[in-house]
Amino acid sequence: MQFNSDNAAPVHPKVWEAMRAADGLDMGYDGDALSARLDEAMSGVFGVPCAALWVATGTAANCLALASMAPPEGGVVCHREAHIEVDEGGAPGFFLHGAKLMLADGEHAKITPEAMRALIDPIRDDVHQVQPHAVSITQASEYGCVYRPEELRALSALCRERGLGFHVDGARFANAVAFLGCPPREACNGADALSFGFVKNGAMNAEAIVFFDPDKADRIRYRRKRAGHLQSKGRFMAAQILALIEDNLWLHNANNANATARHLASKVPDRLLHPVEANELFVRLSDAERAALREQGFGFHDWGSDAARIVTAWDTRDEHVAALGSALVAL
Amino acid sequence: MQFNSDNAAPVHPKVWEAMRAADGLDMGYDGDALSARLDEAMSGVFGVPCAALWVATGTAANCLALASMAPPEGGVVCHREAHIEVDEGGAPGFFLHGAKLMLADGEHAKITPEAMRALIDPIRDDVHQVQPHAVSITQASEYGCVYRPEELRALSALCRERGLGFHVDGARFANAVAFLGCPPREACNGADALSFGFVKNGAMNAEAIVFFDPDKADRIRYRRKRAGHLQSKGRFMAAQILALIEDNLWLHNANNANATARHLASKVPDRLLHPVEANELFVRLSDAERAALREQGFGFHDWGSDAARIVTAWDTRDEHVAALGSALVAL
Amino acid sequence: MQFNSDNAAPVHPKVWEAMRAADGLDMGYDGDALSARLDEAMSGVFGVPCAALWVATGTAANCLALASMAPPEGGVVCHREAHIEVDEGGAPGFFLHGAKLMLADGEHAKITPEAMRALIDPIRDDVHQVQPHAVSITQASEYGCVYRPEELRALSALCRERGLGFHVDGARFANAVAFLGCPPREACNGADALSFGFVKNGAMNAEAIVFFDPDKADRIRYRRKRAGHLQSKGRFMAAQILALIEDNLWLHNANNANATARHLASKVPDRLLHPVEANELFVRLSDAERAALREQGFGFHDWGSDAARIVTAWDTRDEHVAALGSALVAL
Amino acid sequence: MQFNSDNAAPVHPKVWEAMRAADGLDMGYDGDALSARLDEAMSGVFGVPCAALWVATGTAANCLALASMAPPEGGVVCHREAHIEVDEGGAPGFFLHGAKLMLADGEHAKITPEAMRALIDPIRDDVHQVQPHAVSITQASEYGCVYRPEELRALSALCRERGLGFHVDGARFANAVAFLGCPPREACNGADALSFGFVKNGAMNAEAIVFFDPDKADRIRYRRKRAGHLQSKGRFMAAQILALIEDNLWLHNANNANATARHLASKVPDRLLHPVEANELFVRLSDAERAALREQGFGFHDWGSDAARIVTAWDTRDEHVAALGSALVAL
Repeated sequence: MQFNSDNAAPVHPKVWEAMRAADGLDMGYDGDALSARLDEAMSGVFGVPCAALWVATGTAANCLALASMAPPEGGVVCHREAHIEVDEGGAPGFFLHGAKLMLADGEHAKITPEAMRALIDPIRDDVHQVQPHAVSITQASEYGCVYRPEELRALSALCRERGLGFHVDGARFANAVAFLGCPPREACNGADALSFGFVKNGAMNAEAIVFFDPDKADRIRYRRKRAGHLQSKGRFMAAQILALIEDNLWLHNANNANATARHLASKVPDRLLHPVEANELFVRLSDAERAALREQGFGFHDWGSDAARIVTAWDTRDEHVAALGSALVAL
Repeated sequence: MQFNSDNAAPVHPKVWEAMRAADGLDMGYDGDALSARLDEAMSGVFGVPCAALWVATGTAANCLALASMAPPEGGVVCHREAHIEVDEGGAPGFFLHGAKLMLADGEHAKITPEAMRALIDPIRDDVHQVQPHAVSITQASEYGCVYRPEELRALSALCRERGLGFHVDGARFANAVAFLGCPPREACNGADALSFGFVKNGAMNAEAIVFFDPDKADRIRYRRKRAGHLQSKGRFMAAQILALIEDNLWLHNANNANATARHLASKVPDRLLHPVEANELFVRLSDAERAALREQGFGFHDWGSDAARIVTAWDTRDEHVAALGSALVAL
Repeated sequence: MQFNSDNAAPVHPKVWEAMRAADGLDMGYDGDALSARLDEAMSGVFGVPCAALWVATGTAANCLALASMAPPEGGVVCHREAHIEVDEGGAPGFFLHGAKLMLADGEHAKITPEAMRALIDPIRDDVHQVQPHAVSITQASEYGCVYRPEELRALSALCRERGLGFHVDGARFANAVAFLGCPPREACNGADALSFGFVKNGAMNAEAIVFFDPDKADRIRYRRKRAGHLQSKGRFMAAQILALIEDNLWLHNANNANATARHLASKVPDRLLHPVEANELFVRLSDAERAALREQGFGFHDWGSDAARIVTAWDTRDEHVAALGSALVAL
Repeated sequence: MQFNSDNAAPVHPKVWEAMRAADGLDMGYDGDALSARLDEAMSGVFGVPCAALWVATGTAANCLALASMAPPEGGVVCHREAHIEVDEGGAPGFFLHGAKLMLADGEHAKITPEAMRALIDPIRDDVHQVQPHAVSITQASEYGCVYRPEELRALSALCRERGLGFHVDGARFANAVAFLGCPPREACNGADALSFGFVKNGAMNAEAIVFFDPDKADRIRYRRKRAGHLQSKGRFMAAQILALIEDNLWLHNANNANATARHLASKVPDRLLHPVEANELFVRLSDAERAALREQGFGFHDWGSDAARIVTAWDTRDEHVAALGSALVAL
């Protein structure tokens, strides 16, 4: 009964099926029939024309998306606890050739327009200071919290006003949409590009970069190749994504992850450090309590010295959260 | 009957099996049990201690390997027609932060010690000129030709003499070993790092970077993450490689590719532009002849205006080469 | 009566003389007789063997020095208000190929060992997080405060313990040494490299990078050229530096700047935001007060909304500080 | 009697005067009165509106200019013997973040439209190959040969047709204009940016980057700072350039260099490897002959094993070339 991370969860049976069906001969790279269907399929999901590129990791998706927005001499605003700042091994510095991450504060790892202004307004508009060129937020946030459509509208309006690109790191975008119950485009309102995560939601190793201005994708195709991310059997990448977006399997999977997380949250409302809106719980737990849970066979990550991060996934079963819930209550 | 490229060939059934078997829970990234076995398995293949990292593409493998050898201000010697120079979208410039490829000449896309000296001896040892730090050769070469162990010994001796790192791009290393019939280490004699290709030989999207000085791998683990190449479900990457090196499946597959290429070559000895040692044929064919073959359902790449590149793969069947062979003879 | 910055102060007459004397024929780049004397002259200043390279700006000096310590995938610890973080237009990201600045807190823009530990101890030693490779401090600090030799010893001991390079940004190193009255090496105790500033202290456009491990300079000679910082008439660069270090002109100049600053500080002890140890004063002044001073012909920089930065220089005259002192007192 | 290089020649008296006159207080960086005059002064030289930035070296000028034209994933066409390829320590790879130099052939180190087409037409328009984004030529060329206005028109027309930026490395642009006797804009016809060299023509350490589309300069101001090339006493940089362009001193100086070179060339027409159009002679000379000349006190660079490069400068005196001319004839 592992709640370590959704990022190592099994591959969904329908994804396996689609990958098997993709075998056989086709053209290499992204010249295959499945890759050719991605733009249209993704445009269907979002209800607007978009261009979609597959890559193997969220880090690559985030950094290639940002490379379409910020020049080497520029900056990208993100939250101080954003994945791109904290957990991607400096990849933005690599893909963006030394561009700078500019760190905003905010509760629940979410950025507000006020926090953004507080960060960028003091920047002198001269060559001695790095100028912001883009903003990157994470939907759902690193603490499992979800931006509401009106919050996104406010942020994207500010971006437009300041001439900043707007990127959404959607490693758990599915969970955000499932929580909001809104059209997907509303859940990334105003974004120029979205890193649409699938790996945490039933895929093996395919994520999508979605460009809402399809022309912006073109340069990034060169960048993807240049970063060694253009796989020669790309059909297996496209197959994973198509399998998940067809028949709304992505939402179905996310709903399971969210529901099991919510169920668990309901057992320990007083221990929660953040609202549980997606599929992550940050739970106050002492050393002794965590040890006790681990002894009972539950796996999870420590979060500092007195809390734990518990993550559910597309395959988390009711009986597992029931067991963990009881164990938590019994502490 | 496609002979376009081995890089889009199907995934071998045993690879599929191994990937399926890898599903289920394990730790993320390269913390899983399969990834943990890679070093030992690869040390077994080469008979010396080595460290092995999986990545999704040959481009990433080549560039990360070279990043262990050349600093940003340095240069890497390679053949004028090397894949890293011609077909990787400038990836070496990206991964090596602007280091320079220095182009050597040589028949059959192979570098000789003489060609290397002709290139690097005139470089003034001053700060105005980029200094070479490494050499990269391709085994088998871009024209399907294979370096003999004694050729490798001469090159690596020169590298050591000049203090240069020695990298082997082994996108088709299996085909080279199969051709030579020698121990694998002999086929990359003296190399500091090998990009060991599997995708063209039955894998889906896993290649290995093999470091013969295991310590050199450590920094590259950080670089792999920073390049967005550390997949979270790494077990599927390790599974592919292990499936192919266990029971020598990699050699079995390469033998089939080589044998079918050789068979085809034997039908048109007078049309060959290069010796056929691995699984690629460069065949003199006029426009009309190529059109005629395509009309009969054969697929291949044009090679300039009066030749074609024909590539066999692990799954190429005797009847297919027999058919193509007859068609070629009948022209 | 300008107190805007020492960075635009006039060139010292002896520097002019030395530059004129350097004219005439010599070898290009750093092959001239004056550049050849730099290492020895600087070794004399510090009492230990060192290698010194001239460059035109402090930004180039800082970034080239750091490039000898941190790889592209690494990090450099500096103060949140360090010049390299705040005022160099992202140059560290450029010269270090995307390496990350890691921001420590501390009073008076100085870093303590505790602040360093608080920053780096929580960094997980895994590939997902950027690892620190070096520390950069500013002597005197951005608030004109000076690290004492024992503070430097503690910092450099921690650097050695953690395997970190130690860089001192000495844009105003002369002012720090003048304040401390200690041997120059004590004022950058344990540093691996020092950006030794001359431009703010009477030079025109020459700074020195001093490497206390002379071997470390060699690679940076290539990097200097690669950054377009190897001037062809390098003799004029060396001449400026030699003019200032010979006869201790650098200390003489710094003493004047410090003394005039100290004098000014003594007039307004209650308005000071930071101790005045070098040649900068940060003075609490309202909008109206600043306007009043400007009306009287005094020039300085605003520092936020209720303070001013006042900088003295090698050429600041007693009557000027007397005038400003009186004006301040009269407010 | 040194003919090694114009790049180490003395500083012109009028440049010294202008630098001295620039001393005294002014704003830092490029906020001074002299820097503010550059755009207009340069627009006057070229008869069209342009923006001009000073930098300390030709390498910085070239690379910053090219950074306005080619993205990191792109390529820059230049001659195989171009200074940016051969003698700038890999600086283009640094400033352009790994963009690739694409090498064209051509007599006298000059590129023709045919050579350009031969290089770029075979490049497949796909992500596997680096796409050209700009062309850089050297006027006068590395062999002292000058592009005629009509040659420039043909090249720039081809650039426009292919959507390529057009850069002119004018380290010896003054010599080219002096040779052509045409309006300066004709000598860099169609160029988007010119590296306008002054250091080889009487300046100390100031070159200008001239942007013929002034808007293109803005981003490069940030890049200049980021490369550590924004000096704080910029007034001394502007002063050098203004001193040389006012009263056409630049042309006067270049005329002297060209005339003395021409004079020398007239003595040894049969030994010349290239037409002598600017101020460089490439002269066939055996080992013994070079030794004999050196014994007589003449300095120059070897050019391979059987030739020498002889360079005149703004200060080369008639009696010096007469002496060298006689010595050459007497061989």
